[in-house]
Amino acid sequence: MAVCYLGLGSNLGNRRKFIRLALERVGALEKTKVIKVSQLYETEPQGFIAASPGFINAAAKISTPLSALKLLKELKAIESELGRKKFKGLRSRPIDLDILFYGNKRISLPYLKVPHPRVTERDFVLRPLKDIAGPLIKSLSAKMKVISKISSMREFIRAQKIKGRTIGFVPTMGALHQGHLSLIRQAKKDNDRCVVSIFVNPIQFGPKEDYKKYPRDLERDSILARSAGCDCVFFPDAGEMYPENYLTYVFVEKITDCLCARLRPGHFKGVTTVVSKLFNIIGPDIAYFGQKDYQQALVIKKMAEDLNMPLKIKVMPTIRESDGLAMSSRNAYLSAQERLDAAVLHQALQKAKEMIFQGERNSRKIIREMRKMILKKKSAKIDYALVADARTLVPVNVIRGKTLIALAARIGKTRLIDNMVVC
Amino acid sequence: MAVCYLGLGSNLGNRRKFIRLALERVGALEKTKVIKVSQLYETEPQGFIAASPGFINAAAKISTPLSALKLLKELKAIESELGRKKFKGLRSRPIDLDILFYGNKRISLPYLKVPHPRVTERDFVLRPLKDIAGPLIKSLSAKMKVISKISSMREFIRAQKIKGRTIGFVPTMGALHQGHLSLIRQAKKDNDRCVVSIFVNPIQFGPKEDYKKYPRDLERDSILARSAGCDCVFFPDAGEMYPENYLTYVFVEKITDCLCARLRPGHFKGVTTVVSKLFNIIGPDIAYFGQKDYQQALVIKKMAEDLNMPLKIKVMPTIRESDGLAMSSRNAYLSAQERLDAAVLHQALQKAKEMIFQGERNSRKIIREMRKMILKKKSAKIDYALVADARTLVPVNVIRGKTLIALAARIGKTRLIDNMVVC
Repeated sequence: MAVCYLGLGSNLGNRRKFIRLALERVGALEKTKVIKVSQLYETEPQGFIAASPGFINAAAKISTPLSALKLLKELKAIESELGRKKFKGLRSRPIDLDILFYGNKRISLPYLKVPHPRVTERDFVLRPLKDIAGPLIKSLSAKMKVISKISSMREFIRAQKIKGRTIGFVPTMGALHQGHLSLIRQAKKDNDRCVVSIFVNPIQFGPKEDYKKYPRDLERDSILARSAGCDCVFFPDAGEMYPENYLTYVFVEKITDCLCARLRPGHFKGVTTVVSKLFNIIGPDIAYFGQKDYQQALVIKKMAEDLNMPLKIKVMPTIRESDGLAMSSRNAYLSAQERLDAAVLHQALQKAKEMIFQGERNSRKIIREMRKMILKKKSAKIDYALVADARTLVPVNVIRGKTLIALAARIGKTRLIDNMVVC
Repeated sequence: MAVCYLGLGSNLGNRRKFIRLALERVGALEKTKVIKVSQLYETEPQGFIAASPGFINAAAKISTPLSALKLLKELKAIESELGRKKFKGLRSRPIDLDILFYGNKRISLPYLKVPHPRVTERDFVLRPLKDIAGPLIKSLSAKMKVISKISSMREFIRAQKIKGRTIGFVPTMGALHQGHLSLIRQAKKDNDRCVVSIFVNPIQFGPKEDYKKYPRDLERDSILARSAGCDCVFFPDAGEMYPENYLTYVFVEKITDCLCARLRPGHFKGVTTVVSKLFNIIGPDIAYFGQKDYQQALVIKKMAEDLNMPLKIKVMPTIRESDGLAMSSRNAYLSAQERLDAAVLHQALQKAKEMIFQGERNSRKIIREMRKMILKKKSAKIDYALVADARTLVPVNVIRGKTLIALAARIGKTRLIDNMVVC
């Protein structure tokens, strides 16, 4: 008998019923028992299928005498039986069954990989699995260090540097998504070791902002970071980073007066200060930032250059959902309808790109068009929509040279940003 | 025949005449010729001999067939003849003659060291000597690197670190005095290599301050730094440190609001910014600051701690002239009378110390006494005289625990500071 973990998903028809039926069928297999079932989790709908209600996901622990291949065959049969074939489209299915773990076995065939690669990469697999297999999940990030003290972090780094190893560094506030993971993968590719910091930095939040409700889940983040190649997570608490009588700040002038700073005063001073501290603690060779936060990346590049910080800054492309929405930890705040509406930011940027491609150089016309598109969504309020010099962030009336087109909008109560650089 | 350099000094009687007479006597020695004589330089009077007019110094290049020992004997005879014996006191003499160089010879006897050790340590020898022996002087600092480009500095540092060498760092604005040299000696003692930066930092000067007239003499400073153990001088220009579109600043709150900051707004922001940059360029293990600039040292320690800079800060005791005046590059601005008056700062601190030793704990009484003493000097105007918590710089009414007593005064047009910490 083998102990296995299965992943179950449904996003069509009576989703809860399909999950229940699938579990009944699995329990009816030869000498197979369903030992434990997770809660049912609803994930965000995919924007491009406007009618889709999103996935319901679950995980189940079973014991079975069937071999892995035989079990796979039976699961496919159940999928067929429950009508999978009747529906078309890759991501639209009444029931989807996967083998996540089959005992301790490692299988790598074109049609069956165990443990399932999504286990450590996809939140919708990880969350239900954590309900019923906590210790097993924990072991997935076991080889990675999680350090919360600055002094221990320095020791880890010293040990690496003595061996001549290079350090890639990805500063984050946790709530990791594919955008972060792409930075981590790049950091690991470019360097011998990859360090990821997870720190929700209080001094970059305004008093009315979401510091307290910002999502925090170290276990989930550690597993995701590990899966992307992270060697060490630095996870200090606020008291470690800002002890009593903290007095020192780093700030960049001018390029922090505009765009996101107008509605978030002091935000960038918080960012540059914490990033300076992290750079001093980690001493990376290269640090990685996402282009989604264009202004942030620009400010940090300027800071590092002006203060002669001994490192390189790499800015990596924005990673997007399939409907174009830029990946962001704050996307999790969106309701189903808001999630659909949110795609309009990217659509507006695409529209701008098209207009420029067709010869439009007048910023006002482009901005007017983008605003019109965005405001068609009832949930949307625009913070700013602007066309600016990509280096100085000074708005331009005529597009010429490297130009930033940047948007910030509230979709419901959630503030989202996106941008595009055209040359 | 040997080519020699002599040092000549006089601070008693008709000083110029004594120098002239001594040169005549040297020229009258057997087959000896005086080839070249420097200008006459007047150095500051020593405070403890109130009546002293200060030294006149000169240097002379001669050729002579006499051996070094024979020449020394003849010089002593000239000193005697010109009445040295008639006067008492070590530093008070109508004529003082030294052999600075005797060809390429190195002599190390108890009564004769050639090259004369003061050549590289004392300004009053170095300045006249430079007039007549520029290339020779240059060769004294030849083994030391002087680097003006940030990229070259980084290369030098990288080469040291690869060999596992530690770096001690002394940031200065040049115009080196014994205070700086004590920091350099300590840096060389504690570390494998010592780097000294010489950079008059424009952003720490107010618009009405002495940025332009601040003394600059790289050659002199290089020789002094070398003599104290410096391995490399970093000497960037303002454009290298602050290129066009420079935007980034580091600042420390609260402890930069008081004392020297009240009359010098923005001063410490300039200091913390340039020191951050230098730390990032040099990457020292330990950086050295003088206690004379107590507030500056405190601010830099706080900055390094708050921003987690990977280095140690060492604060070294104030070095003083024989009358107690704290060494400072700005002392050079003082007239003869002001130089005498300036000693009152240290005297006032000594008075405060005495009062505290005798049990006084009332800050006001101590301040009143210090002010009274200082204002007896006509040239003196007080900027501040205060008693404060040594850690927070908040003024205290009652002395208890580690306490700073700090003074700033203008002596004539020259602003001087001094301080003392009592426990």
